[in-house]
Amino acid sequence: MKNKTNNKPLKGILVLEFCQYLAGPSAGLRLADLGARVIKIENPGKGDLCRILPIKDQWVKNNSLLFHTINRNKESYTANLKSVEELDNIRKLIEEADVIIHNFRPGVMKKLGLDFDQAKECNPELVYAEISGYGKVGPWGKKPGQDLLVQAMSGLMYASGDRDDAPTPFGLAIGDILCGAQVVQAILAALVYKNRKKKAIKIEVSLLESLIDFQFEIFTTYFASGKLPKRSLVNNAHALLGAPYGIYKTKDGYIALAMIPLQDLKEIIQSDLLNEYDQSMVFSKRDEIKSILVDLIKENSSKFWIEKLLAKGLWATSLKNWKELKNSQSYEFLKLEQEIQISINQSFKTNRCPIRINGEIMWGSVPAPDLGADNEVIKKEFNLNPEHS
Amino acid sequence: MKNKTNNKPLKGILVLEFCQYLAGPSAGLRLADLGARVIKIENPGKGDLCRILPIKDQWVKNNSLLFHTINRNKESYTANLKSVEELDNIRKLIEEADVIIHNFRPGVMKKLGLDFDQAKECNPELVYAEISGYGKVGPWGKKPGQDLLVQAMSGLMYASGDRDDAPTPFGLAIGDILCGAQVVQAILAALVYKNRKKKAIKIEVSLLESLIDFQFEIFTTYFASGKLPKRSLVNNAHALLGAPYGIYKTKDGYIALAMIPLQDLKEIIQSDLLNEYDQSMVFSKRDEIKSILVDLIKENSSKFWIEKLLAKGLWATSLKNWKELKNSQSYEFLKLEQEIQISINQSFKTNRCPIRINGEIMWGSVPAPDLGADNEVIKKEFNLNPEHS
Repeated sequence: MKNKTNNKPLKGILVLEFCQYLAGPSAGLRLADLGARVIKIENPGKGDLCRILPIKDQWVKNNSLLFHTINRNKESYTANLKSVEELDNIRKLIEEADVIIHNFRPGVMKKLGLDFDQAKECNPELVYAEISGYGKVGPWGKKPGQDLLVQAMSGLMYASGDRDDAPTPFGLAIGDILCGAQVVQAILAALVYKNRKKKAIKIEVSLLESLIDFQFEIFTTYFASGKLPKRSLVNNAHALLGAPYGIYKTKDGYIALAMIPLQDLKEIIQSDLLNEYDQSMVFSKRDEIKSILVDLIKENSSKFWIEKLLAKGLWATSLKNWKELKNSQSYEFLKLEQEIQISINQSFKTNRCPIRINGEIMWGSVPAPDLGADNEVIKKEFNLNPEHS
Repeated sequence: MKNKTNNKPLKGILVLEFCQYLAGPSAGLRLADLGARVIKIENPGKGDLCRILPIKDQWVKNNSLLFHTINRNKESYTANLKSVEELDNIRKLIEEADVIIHNFRPGVMKKLGLDFDQAKECNPELVYAEISGYGKVGPWGKKPGQDLLVQAMSGLMYASGDRDDAPTPFGLAIGDILCGAQVVQAILAALVYKNRKKKAIKIEVSLLESLIDFQFEIFTTYFASGKLPKRSLVNNAHALLGAPYGIYKTKDGYIALAMIPLQDLKEIIQSDLLNEYDQSMVFSKRDEIKSILVDLIKENSSKFWIEKLLAKGLWATSLKNWKELKNSQSYEFLKLEQEIQISINQSFKTNRCPIRINGEIMWGSVPAPDLGADNEVIKKEFNLNPEHS
């Protein structure tokens, strides 16, 4: 085992990852960080296309920094899946695997001879997880999934930003990450279940369904009221929450106000402008109240407001950017970074798995594999035909 | 079992949920939707405070619609945890449980006699999951967690919106949801593990660590370059991706452009203004290129652009709001809604679990319990002292 931490819960679980880009590999990474052995099955030519996906033009050993970040703790085995001979080797790996994850477009695995029904012939206890863009059924069923485009199709872009702003994307690949997280949940639930039933299990999750699930508050409210939620005119932070919920500019920065009873806020701010409003109006007069607060709060410093708010035990904070967070004492205490040693001369820093188990951090600092780096070892270990791949 | 679908993977798993608001209950809901039996342990007075948390002022039977939405498929057992006698009943439940989840502030469970070490005395194979705001160590260790405030502390608000915009929150409770998802992952990993080791396992996850994990691309890039990522001046959609990634206004709406090679875009748009730019400049001249695209794209309709882009197989789409999505044919095919029947006369619609297992949707339409609704049944079933609670 290459992992630093020995007591990982998924030790002994073998995962074959037929995935590229972000959703599938992020699921593989979580499983690896929790102790599973994850083998990426890659095309011998280019491999996972994320290897060449530039993020801020940062590269490590000719692969993108993003690839390195989310493919830590994995092995790489290359196979031309269109070759019948090489497929034999893959089938032998499937016999030994606990889990397959793939995010090929609908239909591709079947053509290769590796869909659920074909794979379970090799391994009747396999957990087989499929990630798609739009759920495989209906007119969008065969569309490839991409995070920004699925965000655009899901309504999510009308949740952030203010009312008169353009549709505002979540500034990170939220669909990929949530979908990857749900694939992990489903795989592990299936492993719990399989121990009882001893049969193969197929899991399906899609980026679109993940983003709809994420918006359950919005959809449920929309179904109930028949009205589309509206972002607030100013300082929107959650289209469904009343005033003052939002980020407010102060004389020298920004503060966040979460659920704070209006009466408490009135006592702190002490302005006649707020006299006519009470708690019963935080939804109906949300934008009016927030607009007044914008004018009042900008007159004093963040420190001025935060001291008064915290003295009353109210939900408020000043903001931190990434640098300020990194320089905070709590960040240091939490041990949030790990060093990935690529070679004697080269390393990079990244975050760690957010889960602690029995007080231990699930470190996982083995660097991402070069394309096909583990072919020879895997062939020997699993008794594959050494001529192929 | 109250669930519609019989073949759920977590059937037989008993979870005690000492949680309120969103992160913990969302974890409980996922476990319930996957087949676990989830009992909310609530204070006899008010119960989970989410019962009275208004979301868009929508209420169902005196409880907030949000509470109903994320506490489907659960039971409610009320106990005054400060009473020694009632604690005996709780300890008996713990003896039978597989999992405890709690999101009390650090120290509270210990005071109650229910921290990990105390709980595992009752049940040496328990999986015990703790959710905190900031990870329990360091100067923020005892701060209570709230989604907007943790977003504000995590740097995340500098990821969405354009460069000159105020810090822009993700317009949904992203910290709660991701943290809840990771708790589920860890719990299930522990159940997989426990089957091998037969010992109690403690899990810790915090909102802050979840949001830092979510931003791994940003942090890793920041560590590598020493520079804070900057949102683009216009149409920001991901601070680390080059032009044209973003949402563009057209004559009659908006379109999303994901990773599209600049050359392809130049062939479609055909403007001299783009002549001097090539693929090597999509990072260094990101904002210049995007600003030019803004001016060019607004001259024609969404349909005009999307037809040309899709004809070339490029990553683009027009946008849908929630209503347009709901009215789409794919939405219907995916069967995304379920009806929760509260009483003979009352029901509401909500989303379903996004995971399919063996082709089956994990329906879970049992309504959220009234406070203490299951006390009598649970007392009998688990042979508790009927005088207490």
